[in-house]
Amino acid sequence: MTNYLETNKQRFLDELLDLLRIPSVSADSAFKGDVRRAAEFVKDKLTAAGLDKAALYETPGHPIVYAEKIVDATLPTVLVYGHYDVQPADPYELWNTPPFEPTIRNERIYARGACDDKGQFYMHIKAIEAMVATDGLPCNVKVMIEGEEEVGSDHLGTFVKENREMLKADVILISDTSIISNETPSLEMGLRGLSYVEVQVTGANRDLHSGVYGGGVANPINVLCEMIASLHDENGRVTIPGFYDKVIDLSDTERAELAKAPFDLEEYKKDLGINDVLGETGYSTNERTSIRPTLDVNGIWGGYTGEGAKTVLPSKASAKISMRLVPNQTPDEITEMFTSHFKSIAPAGVTVTVTPHHGGMPYVTPIDSVEFEAASKAFEEAWGKKPIPTRGGGSIPITALFEQELGIKSILMGFGLDSDALHSPNESYGLFNFYKGIETIPYFYKYYAALKQ
Amino acid sequence: MTNYLETNKQRFLDELLDLLRIPSVSADSAFKGDVRRAAEFVKDKLTAAGLDKAALYETPGHPIVYAEKIVDATLPTVLVYGHYDVQPADPYELWNTPPFEPTIRNERIYARGACDDKGQFYMHIKAIEAMVATDGLPCNVKVMIEGEEEVGSDHLGTFVKENREMLKADVILISDTSIISNETPSLEMGLRGLSYVEVQVTGANRDLHSGVYGGGVANPINVLCEMIASLHDENGRVTIPGFYDKVIDLSDTERAELAKAPFDLEEYKKDLGINDVLGETGYSTNERTSIRPTLDVNGIWGGYTGEGAKTVLPSKASAKISMRLVPNQTPDEITEMFTSHFKSIAPAGVTVTVTPHHGGMPYVTPIDSVEFEAASKAFEEAWGKKPIPTRGGGSIPITALFEQELGIKSILMGFGLDSDALHSPNESYGLFNFYKGIETIPYFYKYYAALKQ
Repeated sequence: MTNYLETNKQRFLDELLDLLRIPSVSADSAFKGDVRRAAEFVKDKLTAAGLDKAALYETPGHPIVYAEKIVDATLPTVLVYGHYDVQPADPYELWNTPPFEPTIRNERIYARGACDDKGQFYMHIKAIEAMVATDGLPCNVKVMIEGEEEVGSDHLGTFVKENREMLKADVILISDTSIISNETPSLEMGLRGLSYVEVQVTGANRDLHSGVYGGGVANPINVLCEMIASLHDENGRVTIPGFYDKVIDLSDTERAELAKAPFDLEEYKKDLGINDVLGETGYSTNERTSIRPTLDVNGIWGGYTGEGAKTVLPSKASAKISMRLVPNQTPDEITEMFTSHFKSIAPAGVTVTVTPHHGGMPYVTPIDSVEFEAASKAFEEAWGKKPIPTRGGGSIPITALFEQELGIKSILMGFGLDSDALHSPNESYGLFNFYKGIETIPYFYKYYAALKQ
Repeated sequence: MTNYLETNKQRFLDELLDLLRIPSVSADSAFKGDVRRAAEFVKDKLTAAGLDKAALYETPGHPIVYAEKIVDATLPTVLVYGHYDVQPADPYELWNTPPFEPTIRNERIYARGACDDKGQFYMHIKAIEAMVATDGLPCNVKVMIEGEEEVGSDHLGTFVKENREMLKADVILISDTSIISNETPSLEMGLRGLSYVEVQVTGANRDLHSGVYGGGVANPINVLCEMIASLHDENGRVTIPGFYDKVIDLSDTERAELAKAPFDLEEYKKDLGINDVLGETGYSTNERTSIRPTLDVNGIWGGYTGEGAKTVLPSKASAKISMRLVPNQTPDEITEMFTSHFKSIAPAGVTVTVTPHHGGMPYVTPIDSVEFEAASKAFEEAWGKKPIPTRGGGSIPITALFEQELGIKSILMGFGLDSDALHSPNESYGLFNFYKGIETIPYFYKYYAALKQ
């Protein structure tokens, strides 16, 4: 095995770079063709890795790629999940090298999707290839790679419901999260959920001259800013009525446990180039970004944004707003709370619309389960250290979906780093992490098979 | 005269339409060549109207067009000012017909600049042509048409300073404002000034994943919204310390005088498609838009504004903010107050920059002056009604400059309507107003010459 990995090192990397050259941006319909090309690429590599029945499953959106290898019906089955779509790459001008022309610099792969999630799910295809080519698979394996994760996995739910039999498995293995550092491996035991809305504030029926009308009628931008500002109080708490009602506060013991994860505030600020952190009063930075719900504006636009000065009083102003949720908060409920509250605070003279985008349920994995133990042992063998259990701030909505539809838990065995700049210009993934992941994954199969006996 | 105007009606209009076809957008460097074409066009028409020495005067920005006709050194001299540049036309998609393909619909000319200010200054060139071609000019006339009014007239000041002799005159005549309605002519006796800034709030040194960092670091958009929201209190008053210090509150008599101008709130709301007006407590809509200073966001942008959803926590957020000023407030002082206040309210975790754009002094014309009387009589003769003196909300910064540099007053003899949609999609100018203006202007020369004797 070790030998096989060593011999094929360069080819594994070259294949990933080919995949990264395909701009599979699911959010922008202009890239529809590229998204499909990426799906075809994945299908071919699954077949090449020795899996059976590799095929594209059409959806009203982008296709889902599926393949499987049943070695022995009596062995446990691992369902691997990942996504071949990526976030939009803009602002392009901030990339040091083009987002879809992967470049290797100081031992890192720079490209959109390098880590999220092409680099991470591709490790599984190569790990499976290696197992098949050497000692054989200790478990049955099913692989499902979707193309709509970055836009809310809108059609995955239907696919899973309609293919329960085909997807039947004992555990789901996902690499789409981060470890604390290459010196301190960790395993996510929980994730935040997501509620995402787009709001629009409309004032007059046309853009107006700010001199002639300024001061006399509502300015949608000023109003939108006031409405957004009112969504947080002076302690950084979200003011939407009922927002925190279902949030379970962790016990001091649990908080102390989480606090054990190494964290250097000075390093953190230095890395981000900020003079101070900002967040909810009474919680540490790690808590604010993992066990606490949040509300962030992800985009805002309105009026004249071109060169020079234009004295316009715009007709409309818009914003994209997302809320990160924690266990027991549900996206539907929170989105509804947001919508009715946001409309209720609109002043006279404007009309407000709220359009929900995708949402996702928060998730927690039981740390004392066989699955978690197998993943933990895999890290221990490959990295020589027990991984630290952590709670992640991001969202992988489908974990909740899988539990509900397939009745099985997901293991979040991510190998990325927070500094990989996911969703940002100059996203990258360490060669060390890519190869270490391929080395770690087979150990999971080994220990999982053993523990399930 | 009447005969001449009637005979050449169609040609006057055709010439204006040719001028409107030139996209002379001064704010956007992409249109630099078109701006110059417009200047050349104006120069040729000034010569054709019978004026001497028509020429382009270069500036570091766009050229200034000047021409003159000295009929008799003992006669008073009128200096006509206007601007051939126009506001950007975006959003293009909201125009019913292309902004630079002028179209006549229900007796109105639809095009960017139709009223502001091509349609209005061109009336003067045609009125002068008519006077020269018929009874002759009763005053000497000098015409100065600039190409940077919409971007702050940055280079007009130097030009005026350097050409005091050439520009020597007794009064400045400007048509770049509105009348109350075609049934109720009016004359501006005052205008608001302007202070315009661009602000940028920067958080982390890169865009971040809102799941990984959300809640832990300052979100520049949320922060910008909070800072902007804090600039007004619950009574719609600007909270910048000292902002109102120099504002002179009008006496009840003065307010009563202004209140005489006919105004139908229901019509106003209907025209704008709003269910209510919004503004400073304790003032009428007319007062809010004329005698009170304001603060409006003219543009805002940050984060992801494309299709679909992107869970990004942006590095930067920006806004263009303008303040309309009233007599005694000076743009430099207000811009400085804004800058220091805005920086002072920035929370930890972000850095703020404030970049001043152009400003303009507020202005008041003495209603009992010979100039104002001549203009008033001109309206009376052409419209059969005495014009109502009003205070305008817009700004014509150069009026203050002229008074300071040339020591003379400006007469704001505008013929537009507030409903002409200046600076907005589907800007238009009534054929009635265009022709009525050409008819009214010669009467001003007649009465001014008479009153100055």
